Amino acid sequence: MKVRNPRTGLYDYEISQLSFETLKIKADTMRHAQKSWQAIGIEQRIKTIQRWKKVLERHLEELTEVLIVDTGRKIETVYEINLVLTAIDQFCDLAQDYFKVEVQTILHNNTYHIEEYSDPFELVGIISTWQFPFQSAMMQAIPALLAGNSVLVKPSEKTPRFVRVLEKTISQIPHFNNLLHFIEGEKEVGEMLCSITDLICFTGSEEKARKVFETSAKHFVPAQLAFGGKGAAIVTETADIESASSAILWGGTFNAGQSLESIERVYVHRNIHSQFLSRLVGKSNLLTLNYPNIEYGQIGPIITEKQATNINEQLADAVKKGAVIVAGAEKCIVQKGSIYCRPTILTNVSHHMRIMREMTFGPILPVKSFLNETQALDFANDSNSTFNCSVFAGKDSEAMKIARRIKSKSITINDVYMGNRFYRNEKSSTNAAETKAENIGTFSFKKFLNHKNLMFKK
Amino acid sequence: MKVRNPRTGLYDYEISQLSFETLKIKADTMRHAQKSWQAIGIEQRIKTIQRWKKVLERHLEELTEVLIVDTGRKIETVYEINLVLTAIDQFCDLAQDYFKVEVQTILHNNTYHIEEYSDPFELVGIISTWQFPFQSAMMQAIPALLAGNSVLVKPSEKTPRFVRVLEKTISQIPHFNNLLHFIEGEKEVGEMLCSITDLICFTGSEEKARKVFETSAKHFVPAQLAFGGKGAAIVTETADIESASSAILWGGTFNAGQSLESIERVYVHRNIHSQFLSRLVGKSNLLTLNYPNIEYGQIGPIITEKQATNINEQLADAVKKGAVIVAGAEKCIVQKGSIYCRPTILTNVSHHMRIMREMTFGPILPVKSFLNETQALDFANDSNSTFNCSVFAGKDSEAMKIARRIKSKSITINDVYMGNRFYRNEKSSTNAAETKAENIGTFSFKKFLNHKNLMFKK
Repeated sequence: MKVRNPRTGLYDYEISQLSFETLKIKADTMRHAQKSWQAIGIEQRIKTIQRWKKVLERHLEELTEVLIVDTGRKIETVYEINLVLTAIDQFCDLAQDYFKVEVQTILHNNTYHIEEYSDPFELVGIISTWQFPFQSAMMQAIPALLAGNSVLVKPSEKTPRFVRVLEKTISQIPHFNNLLHFIEGEKEVGEMLCSITDLICFTGSEEKARKVFETSAKHFVPAQLAFGGKGAAIVTETADIESASSAILWGGTFNAGQSLESIERVYVHRNIHSQFLSRLVGKSNLLTLNYPNIEYGQIGPIITEKQATNINEQLADAVKKGAVIVAGAEKCIVQKGSIYCRPTILTNVSHHMRIMREMTFGPILPVKSFLNETQALDFANDSNSTFNCSVFAGKDSEAMKIARRIKSKSITINDVYMGNRFYRNEKSSTNAAETKAENIGTFSFKKFLNHKNLMFKK
Repeated sequence: MKVRNPRTGLYDYEISQLSFETLKIKADTMRHAQKSWQAIGIEQRIKTIQRWKKVLERHLEELTEVLIVDTGRKIETVYEINLVLTAIDQFCDLAQDYFKVEVQTILHNNTYHIEEYSDPFELVGIISTWQFPFQSAMMQAIPALLAGNSVLVKPSEKTPRFVRVLEKTISQIPHFNNLLHFIEGEKEVGEMLCSITDLICFTGSEEKARKVFETSAKHFVPAQLAFGGKGAAIVTETADIESASSAILWGGTFNAGQSLESIERVYVHRNIHSQFLSRLVGKSNLLTLNYPNIEYGQIGPIITEKQATNINEQLADAVKKGAVIVAGAEKCIVQKGSIYCRPTILTNVSHHMRIMREMTFGPILPVKSFLNETQALDFANDSNSTFNCSVFAGKDSEAMKIARRIKSKSITINDVYMGNRFYRNEKSSTNAAETKAENIGTFSFKKFLNHKNLMFKK
């Protein structure tokens, strides 16, 4: 399969897929290697991961280069690589504490002694996405490895160029032999992963999450699904318009809006609507494309042609139904094969438009005014899938009151989720649809472990 | 649909199924009622549950009677009703503490303040099983209700007679109006539940768990699956033969072996094999059927004809392949329409026999000797699905060493899981295949809640 270059539009790279038979044999070998990886203990696992980090740092230039070709943008590439390198240390620190306590006493009385401990799943399959190709793969692979699993990663076939560079770094770590693999492949390889691994960890669109869930269920393989949503921002009358407009613009246009967590709709109190809108438009007009020089500007290319079509269709649907474009353009522009979308702000929008309800995945911010809190909440909650929301208000208490009534996995007050990627956060969820995978915390390990009970009768 | 009476073999009861349209409307109404149920707060929810408990106690006789007809056995009926009534109080106690803290601070530093809080799923669908019909439904329904959900329960169509009695008790609790329902129905109703609820909570066989997982995945509904396995017991050379044989006999024959947690295979060190076997046989020969008088004996009927066929086939397969029956009989016996299976002990068994690898769901204990620890572990781990195992040894340290290497969700030392049903146990799991649903602990609530994050930037 030939892969398109997002900056030239040329199909200049080719990936090759393993057959199911080969993959099955690989899986068996990896399950075998997992046993000694688990047996060497957490200290050695941390040391090995740190050794890998050093190798990655030695290949930083090459890695950066291929990721830039994969995605067509530079700022975000540097950002995601730095983020992963920092995260490796954070995960290792956390693992040191977390795995120190191997057995936890749950109950101890005159009759019973009950303990809990954990075992890895053995072979974890990771299906990662193209928006942040390196980050979305590594933020799962690192904790899965630390937890003692063997790990088979299939990054998106849209951004596959970094796979071979990573494999080169992996081959320099003896402990990773048959333990960790990044493989190329399309949908079919993802489906194979759902049948040969012990846990599937997916990051990507809801549409694909549904398919992965269905396929893994068919094979009775548990799936952890991290997918985005139609992120909303609510701006109340008392909000600081200056900082709210800056945060929302960043949350909506970073990585050209191609993020699972981006803000895709804005609800503003009618008394400040025009004021907010003019600040947002003013600021958005200052943003420039990373074109022709990748070193300048803030807005990179739309990575896939399919996404560009989706953006164009949603914009056309909105305009047809009465939306007014107050910044940006009615459709993506093609420059020598690469596709760009100007930060685009719409007003006069309604929930009858696709752009208010479906994932756009572009730097598009439709802004709608609301009368009161109740209406703002009705708007924000009128979406099938909301992963993160933001509330901007003058007082925390006011924001809190609204925030608690939003149906969303994550809510940020006076900031956007994208600004909060890094913090330690323990969470536990029994949903098959796990949407908070990226946070660093002990949950990162827990999800890669099977928890077991051991009971003594005294 | 006509339902068989396990004591007479007569099809003397009829269930009626709701149409999909009616069920869909019911689901909408229940989702609506959920809002006020959540809003009244935990104190009122506990009070309501306690009020229901009182109503249940007033209908104890009637409830016991229908459950005896449903299952054909009495001791276990009394046991499961008592268990549920005690559990109600335990769940309520635990809920008082658990829901007191509504918001938990995760991080608090100079830049960020992060909180976690929870919301119910809204409408929880429970698909429960026939082995312990009342218990398997109620042990999910009670925590789901306390967590603020509306709850729609479909007990097994094999044991449906208690449904109408429960509905009668529910109708006496005004708060339960449109909030809690037990409905009759076969497989199709279960499938409907997988499409109209926000979370599916299943208890039953692995075969059915796989189907439920597939169906719920198709509708992108998260599923929590509690299913049994081929429970194994390992008896080392140093074990107390007297107490080990008693515990294993009980763990293998309680409820005529019709339990997700029953012991279905025994591995005994060869040096004590014959001694253990003779004690086990001696004790098993003292057990008698609950027939003709339900008041006497320990072994109730095999509840479904399908199960009896399965037991007979597995026994025939084992005997054909060389197994020797040292207690019990080669097949189930039919007495005036009801089917019984004597506690049956097999020796000279191997893992080529279905009885050593597939769920039997009968009072059958195949006993195999082992040479050493490694072989015992190989045997115990040679099963696709093991939910619980027991290790019997003279020293805890010896048992522990073995226990830690068993692939099983739950391991009991010097006892069987069935004896440990009640303890407070907090556990967290991200597996879609959740196998530890029955324990009472904060996990019981967590699994019925969506966990959310709220972040402040300071």
